[in-house]
Amino acid sequence: MDAAEFRRRGKEMVDHVADYLEKIEERPVYPDVEPGYLRSLIPTEAPVEPDSYEDIMKDVERVIMPGITHWHSPNFFAYFPAASSYPAMLADMLCSAIGCIGFSWAASPACTELETVMLDWLGKMLQLPECFLAGTHGHGGGVIQGTASEATLVSLLAARCKAIRRVQLLDPKKSEAEILSKLVAYTSEQAHSSVERAALIGAVMMKKVPTDSLYAVRGEMLKKILEEDKAAGLIPFYFCATLGTTPSCAFDHIADLGPLCNQENMWMHIDAAYAGSAFICPEFRPLLNGVEYADSFNFNPHKWMLINFDCSAMWVKKRTDIIGAFKMEPLYLKHENQESGLVTDYRHWQIPLGRRFRSLKMWFVFRMYGLQGLQAHIRKQVGLAKEFESLVRADKRFEICAPVVMGLVCFRLKGTNELNQSLLKKITKSREIHLVPCQLSGSFVLRLAICSRSTEFRHIQQAWQHITQLAFELLQEHHH
Amino acid sequence: MDAAEFRRRGKEMVDHVADYLEKIEERPVYPDVEPGYLRSLIPTEAPVEPDSYEDIMKDVERVIMPGITHWHSPNFFAYFPAASSYPAMLADMLCSAIGCIGFSWAASPACTELETVMLDWLGKMLQLPECFLAGTHGHGGGVIQGTASEATLVSLLAARCKAIRRVQLLDPKKSEAEILSKLVAYTSEQAHSSVERAALIGAVMMKKVPTDSLYAVRGEMLKKILEEDKAAGLIPFYFCATLGTTPSCAFDHIADLGPLCNQENMWMHIDAAYAGSAFICPEFRPLLNGVEYADSFNFNPHKWMLINFDCSAMWVKKRTDIIGAFKMEPLYLKHENQESGLVTDYRHWQIPLGRRFRSLKMWFVFRMYGLQGLQAHIRKQVGLAKEFESLVRADKRFEICAPVVMGLVCFRLKGTNELNQSLLKKITKSREIHLVPCQLSGSFVLRLAICSRSTEFRHIQQAWQHITQLAFELLQEHHH
Ligand SMILES: Cc1ncc(COP(=O)(O)O)c(C=O)c1O
Ligand SMILES: Cc1ncc(COP(=O)(O)O)c(C=O)c1O
Repeated sequence: MDAAEFRRRGKEMVDHVADYLEKIEERPVYPDVEPGYLRSLIPTEAPVEPDSYEDIMKDVERVIMPGITHWHSPNFFAYFPAASSYPAMLADMLCSAIGCIGFSWAASPACTELETVMLDWLGKMLQLPECFLAGTHGHGGGVIQGTASEATLVSLLAARCKAIRRVQLLDPKKSEAEILSKLVAYTSEQAHSSVERAALIGAVMMKKVPTDSLYAVRGEMLKKILEEDKAAGLIPFYFCATLGTTPSCAFDHIADLGPLCNQENMWMHIDAAYAGSAFICPEFRPLLNGVEYADSFNFNPHKWMLINFDCSAMWVKKRTDIIGAFKMEPLYLKHENQESGLVTDYRHWQIPLGRRFRSLKMWFVFRMYGLQGLQAHIRKQVGLAKEFESLVRADKRFEICAPVVMGLVCFRLKGTNELNQSLLKKITKSREIHLVPCQLSGSFVLRLAICSRSTEFRHIQQAWQHITQLAFELLQEHHH
Repeated sequence: MDAAEFRRRGKEMVDHVADYLEKIEERPVYPDVEPGYLRSLIPTEAPVEPDSYEDIMKDVERVIMPGITHWHSPNFFAYFPAASSYPAMLADMLCSAIGCIGFSWAASPACTELETVMLDWLGKMLQLPECFLAGTHGHGGGVIQGTASEATLVSLLAARCKAIRRVQLLDPKKSEAEILSKLVAYTSEQAHSSVERAALIGAVMMKKVPTDSLYAVRGEMLKKILEEDKAAGLIPFYFCATLGTTPSCAFDHIADLGPLCNQENMWMHIDAAYAGSAFICPEFRPLLNGVEYADSFNFNPHKWMLINFDCSAMWVKKRTDIIGAFKMEPLYLKHENQESGLVTDYRHWQIPLGRRFRSLKMWFVFRMYGLQGLQAHIRKQVGLAKEFESLVRADKRFEICAPVVMGLVCFRLKGTNELNQSLLKKITKSREIHLVPCQLSGSFVLRLAICSRSTEFRHIQQAWQHITQLAFELLQEHHH
């Protein structure tokens, strides 16, 4: 395929993409395929000679589409949103064409520098304390990680390195292995599974802190465990707070937890994967109060800020903490400017070495929506969640299971877990809308998250009608 | 931006991309900017109201392009290639539109299933032993990691988990911390920095094995160290072999190393990040002999197989080894089919949770090039490297520093390291071609890698003329 052919096929693909998204509502949101469905639809080996482009595009409809869960359907309410917008897609096309691998400043200065400045822009939108920004002289700064999971892991590894050095400074006879075996990380019992996984990877113990009745960790709960653990000779070194937990969008009390962590010499990382985007709205910003105590903060613009995956924004107060944990300098990655102290080599900030030019998507989206456009998007989706909450509250057979603060509604039929499991099964099977469950205080709960950019009030209404209809059928069956 | 506007801007972007790539040769390959150049070119904050699309595209040329290292210029010979092709770009546009996050089978069955089958296709192209393929009943299988660094880390973590379990089975009194402190991983002193980094992350000791005169590890070299370490009470558990080292494209002797690792109960991972793509050509396949002893194997189609970053292909013999090291099961990620044992939830195979629909790029590229087209690409680039080698060999002032097996030529001016450093400085400064150095046996060496799909013989000739011209000037200066 040469450039001329690409011009033709590329334009067709642009139309194909627009068609797909414009008509996505006509497709069942959840696919009707059995595990293994795809293998028999295509050859067992790659072709030796090229296939025609027409055949490939036919196969997209024949082979791929039947097995797609349509995340951008207005009827998709599962997990959390996966951001998507046209400006981000345009930027991604440009990113593919430039195709630089931005592991160091020299590997493409624009890639590194735009990222640093975009993270400053975004930090200002969130009103992050100055110390998290790179500015021109700062000690902090931001980086785009691929995912929140990686951001958490990076923060835990930086904290581990710092803790080991600190303990060894006080007691040089202690071996690294000995210290490692005494380190303890903490997080909420409601935290995302990636937090526990980070501790597993980092080979440190992790303890789950119980939450209050609103599923949030409070200072006193952490304090109690810390006292016990210190008395037992353990070394608390890391706490991962969540703002907007995955099950119910609960908010840990960082304004109490932060000072405690600071006092105990513990690294506090904040995982606001989903909720973080909302902090650009003044009405939600108070939930971020206390961030000034954190060592690192992360959220996913690829969830709720219209920037296609992958784009997870992370800031640290002291970038040397992160770089110190990872730095490796082979000659083929050295370049002239790195000794000046002026440049950022992002490979020291992350798990992978290579990285795409991801800040282009940020730049396009920030500029084409403007802060107001982004705020409007957040507010619209929160509004839809509130509408759904009202519908649920108006039906006495149902209950709301957690405060509806942002775009997530946790609800269930009053009754047994089995009943709610049956309801979800019916929903999944009918493929008109898509939801996933969660567990709250032992209850099986349905989660409805406002996900797609194209979800409107009528979809919320239809979804609720559909759910109540299925619930009605279910309750009828139970009565007979 | 609505769909109609996207249709218009998307088509303009397709032309923009094609224009950029068609005229890339006119741009200096390496940018002429100082650290910090970009910040002053754009506002200090995101706009509140949207900017116009025209302004953004103007800024791409004004702000971004001056700071780009053009990886796809035919005059780019640095690092290793970053793959790029039009079919991969088309597939990526589709991937952005579908925008599913493929962490589990249910999150988009097609995303998981196409990946499994594409890795089987690719495994067959490489003639990997059957045990690495998923097939319909296999214990092995492939996964697309983001980068080779992540593949190495995943393999090391799986090996660590397996080793700890094995030792604890023999001696249940041993604590995990105690075992961890005795585990040793090994790799070549020529291995990529990401290997050492994986050990740092995984909190295990790593030792570098010396290489022979061709920069390859041989069985006896590893064996000697293992004997010493075992005698000292350490527990060897992991060896990362390299096929195609970053400095000189050397090949560890896996046919000897493999049986040794098997015998010692050590996990052998093979990192063939760059060279792996060439194994689809029968003439290069013998270099992969011995892969049958490996537990895991990885290479980067995003380097040399025309599939845009990120796409790193990894296979394991026993997928339970990897899954066992990571598995976490919160309710919101559970789905009906997972207990059947028939489905793959790729989140258990990797460091991040989320992932793009990356196998689409593979599918498009394999089908639009066909095996023959891919082989032709490899052979053409190896041919160009051989041409360059001949040019260097014909000039008595220069020497070739390592065998030219694939698309990389290591060479230097006969003389001091300082002389060669000066030569590279001149090359970098003139911005006509771009190279990076490496260190081999204490010598400062220039690396010329055939990178761009658009590099032709005339570019090789021009590059050599340019290098010899600069060398001539340099030698003149030294004489005065
Ligand atoms: C609170 C929280 N943290 C982390 C994650 C994981 O995000 P990622 O896929 O970017 O790793 C999620 C995903 O839903 C989340 O809700
Ligand atoms: C041998 C080898 N391994 C690993 C890597 C790292 O690859 P990635 O950027 O995919 O992590 C490279 C990159 O050049 C390499 O040459």
